[in-house]
Amino acid sequence: MSFVRNAWYVAGWSSDFGNELKALTIVDQTLVMFRCADGALVALEDRCPHRQLPLSKGKRIGDTIQCGYHGMTFGRDGKCVRVPGQDNLPASAYVETYPVHEQHQIVWVWMGDPDQADPDDIFDLPEFSDPAWQAHQGSALHIKAHYLNVAENLVDPAHVSFVHPTTLGSAASENVPVHVRANDDIIVAWRWIRDAAPVGFFQDFGGFKGHVDRWHYYSLHLPSTAVIDFGSADTSLNLAEDDRDAGVRIFALHFVTPVTEDYTIDHWMHLRNTAVGDSEASERMDRMFEVAFAEDKAILEAIHLEEMRPQKRRPIRLAIDKGPTVYRKRIRDLIEIEVTENLGAVRSTFVQHD
Amino acid sequence: MSFVRNAWYVAGWSSDFGNELKALTIVDQTLVMFRCADGALVALEDRCPHRQLPLSKGKRIGDTIQCGYHGMTFGRDGKCVRVPGQDNLPASAYVETYPVHEQHQIVWVWMGDPDQADPDDIFDLPEFSDPAWQAHQGSALHIKAHYLNVAENLVDPAHVSFVHPTTLGSAASENVPVHVRANDDIIVAWRWIRDAAPVGFFQDFGGFKGHVDRWHYYSLHLPSTAVIDFGSADTSLNLAEDDRDAGVRIFALHFVTPVTEDYTIDHWMHLRNTAVGDSEASERMDRMFEVAFAEDKAILEAIHLEEMRPQKRRPIRLAIDKGPTVYRKRIRDLIEIEVTENLGAVRSTFVQHD
Amino acid sequence: MSFVRNAWYVAGWSSDFGNELKALTIVDQTLVMFRCADGALVALEDRCPHRQLPLSKGKRIGDTIQCGYHGMTFGRDGKCVRVPGQDNLPASAYVETYPVHEQHQIVWVWMGDPDQADPDDIFDLPEFSDPAWQAHQGSALHIKAHYLNVAENLVDPAHVSFVHPTTLGSAASENVPVHVRANDDIIVAWRWIRDAAPVGFFQDFGGFKGHVDRWHYYSLHLPSTAVIDFGSADTSLNLAEDDRDAGVRIFALHFVTPVTEDYTIDHWMHLRNTAVGDSEASERMDRMFEVAFAEDKAILEAIHLEEMRPQKRRPIRLAIDKGPTVYRKRIRDLIEIEVTENLGAVRSTFVQHD
Repeated sequence: MSFVRNAWYVAGWSSDFGNELKALTIVDQTLVMFRCADGALVALEDRCPHRQLPLSKGKRIGDTIQCGYHGMTFGRDGKCVRVPGQDNLPASAYVETYPVHEQHQIVWVWMGDPDQADPDDIFDLPEFSDPAWQAHQGSALHIKAHYLNVAENLVDPAHVSFVHPTTLGSAASENVPVHVRANDDIIVAWRWIRDAAPVGFFQDFGGFKGHVDRWHYYSLHLPSTAVIDFGSADTSLNLAEDDRDAGVRIFALHFVTPVTEDYTIDHWMHLRNTAVGDSEASERMDRMFEVAFAEDKAILEAIHLEEMRPQKRRPIRLAIDKGPTVYRKRIRDLIEIEVTENLGAVRSTFVQHD
Repeated sequence: MSFVRNAWYVAGWSSDFGNELKALTIVDQTLVMFRCADGALVALEDRCPHRQLPLSKGKRIGDTIQCGYHGMTFGRDGKCVRVPGQDNLPASAYVETYPVHEQHQIVWVWMGDPDQADPDDIFDLPEFSDPAWQAHQGSALHIKAHYLNVAENLVDPAHVSFVHPTTLGSAASENVPVHVRANDDIIVAWRWIRDAAPVGFFQDFGGFKGHVDRWHYYSLHLPSTAVIDFGSADTSLNLAEDDRDAGVRIFALHFVTPVTEDYTIDHWMHLRNTAVGDSEASERMDRMFEVAFAEDKAILEAIHLEEMRPQKRRPIRLAIDKGPTVYRKRIRDLIEIEVTENLGAVRSTFVQHD
Repeated sequence: MSFVRNAWYVAGWSSDFGNELKALTIVDQTLVMFRCADGALVALEDRCPHRQLPLSKGKRIGDTIQCGYHGMTFGRDGKCVRVPGQDNLPASAYVETYPVHEQHQIVWVWMGDPDQADPDDIFDLPEFSDPAWQAHQGSALHIKAHYLNVAENLVDPAHVSFVHPTTLGSAASENVPVHVRANDDIIVAWRWIRDAAPVGFFQDFGGFKGHVDRWHYYSLHLPSTAVIDFGSADTSLNLAEDDRDAGVRIFALHFVTPVTEDYTIDHWMHLRNTAVGDSEASERMDRMFEVAFAEDKAILEAIHLEEMRPQKRRPIRLAIDKGPTVYRKRIRDLIEIEVTENLGAVRSTFVQHD
């Protein structure tokens, strides 16, 4: 299994969740979610422990869910509150619950050991609440591919010149070397393309006429949230690397949610220090992102199909792969830690029940 | 394998079978059926022993079938009567035959050891030929689910309140206990809901204005024929349990035919002691059944998908599960008997051929 | 695995290949093909060795292909000529190449050991360049079936009376015995039907009014090219078997290309000694072939599905099966030889790399 479970994953935007029961799948676990009367979001295992019907096929009654087959009813804490036809409620009559947290209109669910769930660990940026910045939610890209390939692509500036030649990249960057640094939780791959014509995106948004200095900083926060800090500034400014706020700067955020081994959802949005309050600009930017992300989707789905086919040779690694390589190693380490922890947990569960 | 083979299964209504070759599958065995010149129905293994083409892709010639690939021809007894290009007919040139029996315009096929096939064992009811009763063939529900789940649902009165709240059930019955009795061949689960408003079905058909006593008797005849005896009578009559004919009484019959492990066909019809000879009432009743059975289908297909997913916990059993639990045990017993018999049969076959 | 690899297979007609990158699959190997500036065709492994993207999703630049993900670029000899972001070209940066040969407007690819590829081994007939004969390319039949079943059907005259009763065959031939002879590379099954009414095809093309002598010679060239030499002559001529050119004679050619274990493409065309230069006749003949080959396709796909189902009995073999039986044995022998050779090749590869 290749999923990190002790992690917060994005289930959707706040506006995706209302009173109705919503079924979704994260790291191969089916969930039913709804917003309680007090406004809090609840995520329960989406399977009745009796005859396995997904609870999302049932009916919401107050802050409980009644199974659509025999009416077993579960509270927001996952405990069964009613078994039609009998008075006692068996101890095994429960569904799992998953911690949920909303922040900046984004809904996060913790898929691992609930005791380790800490909302302070959730990805955040000061720019979300900075009035000089505009936040705008885009959409969700559904990709028939493994999430590691999706996330890897987000710490890989080298693909931009070839996958997005008309939007985010250009031939000018093809041979510019990529720098990579990594700490425990974040891997950053970046490069500057100095003194080049602006790419399509910044021709449109920056209003640049002459040459620009352009940057791409791909920060991948483990397990799978990416911030792509990209922007341009007039070459005459000779911008210092740490002075990017002085240019036109955009953070494209990608919240990569593993659904199954074959399916991934990428909720994407952006923050920008330009055109603040200009909703028409937001829409226009979404259209450009949609073009670019459809290009990624086509590549990632083709690779996914190819990876299902027999492999005769081990893939080769190139200089540009440093970010992806570090990323995959970090994920393997995280999973190994969890497997070790789980062995302990499973053992103690057995003791408890026997 | 989870099929009982020594059993009569419904292949369809008599009107489904004519001169043309008809392909169907029962307990994972493909069959080709047709009506002979003398009116008798024949069921043969639907695979030419030469190059495996289904015989149903061939051509009927008199009461024989000519294979569509090389013209091998088989009689109604399954024996090869012609091999184009050669004079001798090899002993191995045959297809299996399956006993067929028609009764009350219903076509039954015996899928097991032909020596054990006895038409007297076929499900029957005196009401089929009682002039005070109307028999009416409904339709065939195709369900992407295992037949045990389909049949189990038919000895399970407890689901009615939750799956069919607007047609066959109502909240009044949610907590009414279910009684179960079983003999060797039939499992009966039943309950009475006394002194309650009539459900949708009987508001329409019984013309009841005040409260009624309502009953549900689910009789499941092994392996998979169900009679749902349900009806209503004015509460003021204080009907005795054995006096149900004095009320408006309907037998919904379900002939559950396992096709594959993932597919089941439920041929359904009804008998009723009301509106005899009223074909408009028959049609109207079919429409109501169609609504209700589509509700079952949705639940059963959702469960089937869920049962394919990994299971972390064993499903829990409730008080209302007595009928289904007894049913599954009986089926397991029947299959075990057959496996034991088959071991013997296979052994003697080997002796014969060696 | 059931593919012969040391063989030339048809990839398509010459007109199918132009400047654009064309993806196809032969014996489960994906290929990308294109026509170079000098007119030569190139076939490369369709998978970038870096991140596995099919090269056919990339971009042609001169006679090289640039991968659509990170821009690795490969020449027509499969060697990498560019790795963006680094100067050195690793030795492992290559894709396999496959020998290609065009002849009579047909494109052949060699799928095995390149050292054994000899264009002189490619199937040929003098009639391709005989002015008394007309060559006409038909189309490509895509069949969801194993190629051995497709090819077997092409050395099996006995099926014609039953599969193609209105086009290529008639009841008159049902019991006519089949002769078979085989040498190392070619299996021929044939029969003459003397003094019978002309079949549909020759009623149309031969203009025959009275009885004809009709022949079918099915020559299957290993591994999977078939020549069906069929024709008719007036019975009064009492044609000798070797004098078929004196009648109306047609060679239907089938180039059977195994795609996967479940998919086969049959490129078909014909040569004829009648209606030379008459393109309307060519079209009309294609229409008749299309009817007949659709009949084969229906049979072969039904058999393929049936072969996926459990088998209780071994298929029986008949007198008419001699051609197919010899054919399958030859293929098994060829594959066994390759497996033995490959074991040697794999062993030496390991020595080289360790």
